[in-house]
Amino acid sequence: MSGIDYFNELNLKEYRALDIKSAAEYVKKQQLKEIFGSDEELIAEDISDGNLNLVFRVKSKNSSRSVILKQGLPYVRRVGESWPLTPVRILVEMKALQIHGEIYKEGIPEVYHTDPAMFLIIMEDLHPAKTLRDCLIEGEYISDIGVNIGRYLGRVMAYTSDFFLDITAKRRNISLFLNPDLVKITEDLVLTNPYHPEGWGNRMEAMEYPEVRALQNDVEFLSKIAALRDKFNNYPQALIHGDLHSGSIMAGDNLCKAIDLEFATYGPIGFDIGNIIGSLLINWIAQEGLTDQPYQCRQYRMYIMQMIEDIWDTFREEIYNAWLNIDKRRWPSPYLEKILKDIWEDAMGYSGTEMIRRTIGLGYIADLKNIEDVQKRRLADKKVLSLALKIIKEPGDIYKLKEYLKEL
Amino acid sequence: MSGIDYFNELNLKEYRALDIKSAAEYVKKQQLKEIFGSDEELIAEDISDGNLNLVFRVKSKNSSRSVILKQGLPYVRRVGESWPLTPVRILVEMKALQIHGEIYKEGIPEVYHTDPAMFLIIMEDLHPAKTLRDCLIEGEYISDIGVNIGRYLGRVMAYTSDFFLDITAKRRNISLFLNPDLVKITEDLVLTNPYHPEGWGNRMEAMEYPEVRALQNDVEFLSKIAALRDKFNNYPQALIHGDLHSGSIMAGDNLCKAIDLEFATYGPIGFDIGNIIGSLLINWIAQEGLTDQPYQCRQYRMYIMQMIEDIWDTFREEIYNAWLNIDKRRWPSPYLEKILKDIWEDAMGYSGTEMIRRTIGLGYIADLKNIEDVQKRRLADKKVLSLALKIIKEPGDIYKLKEYLKEL
Repeated sequence: MSGIDYFNELNLKEYRALDIKSAAEYVKKQQLKEIFGSDEELIAEDISDGNLNLVFRVKSKNSSRSVILKQGLPYVRRVGESWPLTPVRILVEMKALQIHGEIYKEGIPEVYHTDPAMFLIIMEDLHPAKTLRDCLIEGEYISDIGVNIGRYLGRVMAYTSDFFLDITAKRRNISLFLNPDLVKITEDLVLTNPYHPEGWGNRMEAMEYPEVRALQNDVEFLSKIAALRDKFNNYPQALIHGDLHSGSIMAGDNLCKAIDLEFATYGPIGFDIGNIIGSLLINWIAQEGLTDQPYQCRQYRMYIMQMIEDIWDTFREEIYNAWLNIDKRRWPSPYLEKILKDIWEDAMGYSGTEMIRRTIGLGYIADLKNIEDVQKRRLADKKVLSLALKIIKEPGDIYKLKEYLKEL
Repeated sequence: MSGIDYFNELNLKEYRALDIKSAAEYVKKQQLKEIFGSDEELIAEDISDGNLNLVFRVKSKNSSRSVILKQGLPYVRRVGESWPLTPVRILVEMKALQIHGEIYKEGIPEVYHTDPAMFLIIMEDLHPAKTLRDCLIEGEYISDIGVNIGRYLGRVMAYTSDFFLDITAKRRNISLFLNPDLVKITEDLVLTNPYHPEGWGNRMEAMEYPEVRALQNDVEFLSKIAALRDKFNNYPQALIHGDLHSGSIMAGDNLCKAIDLEFATYGPIGFDIGNIIGSLLINWIAQEGLTDQPYQCRQYRMYIMQMIEDIWDTFREEIYNAWLNIDKRRWPSPYLEKILKDIWEDAMGYSGTEMIRRTIGLGYIADLKNIEDVQKRRLADKKVLSLALKIIKEPGDIYKLKEYLKEL
């Protein structure tokens, strides 16, 4: 596998950004025989809705078949050319899809075509699956979703970590996924800015909350944040997704796939687990604002809690299997327990940072934003922050987490 | 700075190993005007005595001036072609000398010339300085040596870590110093093999010691070793020397320079500090076998203990200054205390692994080997292992360390 050059000027000679016309033509030219007949006419629609990239759905006029074309821009799509950002992120996503896909193909979309010079990927259209976030906001039940997330995480983490890789293979992967530009975005927007009143991108309104001012001045708490930031930057434990919130998971019947892998890097396993758990906890809290049916709220919260337990139990089971079957380093069993305990505690910490940044940082989360009643929304913000603070200061086991939720 | 390719076949077309004749000619051709006059005749002597490389002293026939020429071989010099090892290690040393030298030139030898195609470096001859190990074995007192080691460590660690580097600069450095082949040697020979009875390179005699059998079966202890190994492989905190025992430090009046930087990599700061402290503790214990003068032994032990305190205090002072003056991340002060506490505890752990590998692994250390009385030598081995075990299981502060020494 050839490397990715993160540190020199890019060659953009062959690059041009596509539009709906050229996107359809581009896909047509690839002759994706397993998808489209050679005489089918293709049309594209622009469905870009993330912050960073162009996304087109290219579909047949003659059939229901379609693909997704994702292309990187040399800037942040949502902001424009004033925020330049290397399209190298698409090369990162290509490699991450390849590696995660080789390990556990059920966990990511199928890739049909990649073009490094155009910084684009053509992949499986997961329609009509929705993001897990949309499902959660609408209170839908998806079977086995927690187990499937846990399996994806356990499998890819085991096989990209020291359980399976010797130092040379591991460091080759590390160099492939240095991904400094996107890691910097996470360092800034997730792990730094929300803790400074003047941090770029923060929700101005939230900067006035008394509990936000308090946490921004709580030196013991800020030391915990500093430790989480250091670990995110400096613990290349496994090839993590890097942005695995509920909006990065497509969910449907018998379907659970991670998308948007451009933040992939070698980092702490607990970062991914924490991000998804943090997303789920936000929704758990938001439920009482999203529905006015107390019974429904209670039921759905039980469902979310079960999802969290399923993620962890399945992940744990996969790691245990890796230890039994592929462990290259003869780790003694108390050390396995320590690894798992550390990963859980990291996950608790990063679930806290995810909750905080989604409440007071850039990108106020839909789960909370969708609460129509202003007072209920404010109360939900407050509860999210209170839970995050506790969980970061004293990350306990899953029973402790349940206690914290009861105390809200 | 261009990168180092660790993962593809080397180009050795322009490479040829030098001998005393061609080494002298090579140096002559470089016209090192600051060292030699253009009409001086040069002669070389082979002074290779490390495990890995060719080392020549090239000196003037007309004056006392000389330089050191160090060249990598495509195998381990001491073993021969049956143990191939990439000469890329010399490129690593070049870059590490450059970076450490830019930060703190007093801490490393001056470099006069580098030749990446020939995998060689021409550098300052530190003669008549000796290795710190030789000084310690002979019971010599060297002024300020602890302070100088601490300053070197503090300065280079601060400026190659997150105190000073943003994520892009840091990750560029990480990719430059992946150094998988030499890191693998450390993982195996220092952090793995001594803990397995059949580990390659172990001292056969020591495998029969009851205390060695005990530690090789102590699962709680082995879990601590696993954690130290994981941290060595996976905590790119700063650009460490990677092999900073007392034989890698040249010591003399007003002179303290680290040599042999081919193991340089991004790793935990405590690894370097621990290696040097571990070396010193071995010598502390060995003193009662090396001299039959109890007073002299006691005095020298106080001197070694003072050296350890000077290393730590000066290192700590440098890090504190870095925090005050160059900290890019606004770390809160309790976090600074935590960083320092963690580094000290890491250092205690790695001082333990250094003591163990030097006693029972490959390369039984001269400090112990030089004890002529067999029983005294056996007793010293035992004390080194006993101290290492305690320090790894329960790394306390410096007072705890002194207690452990008293208990021996």
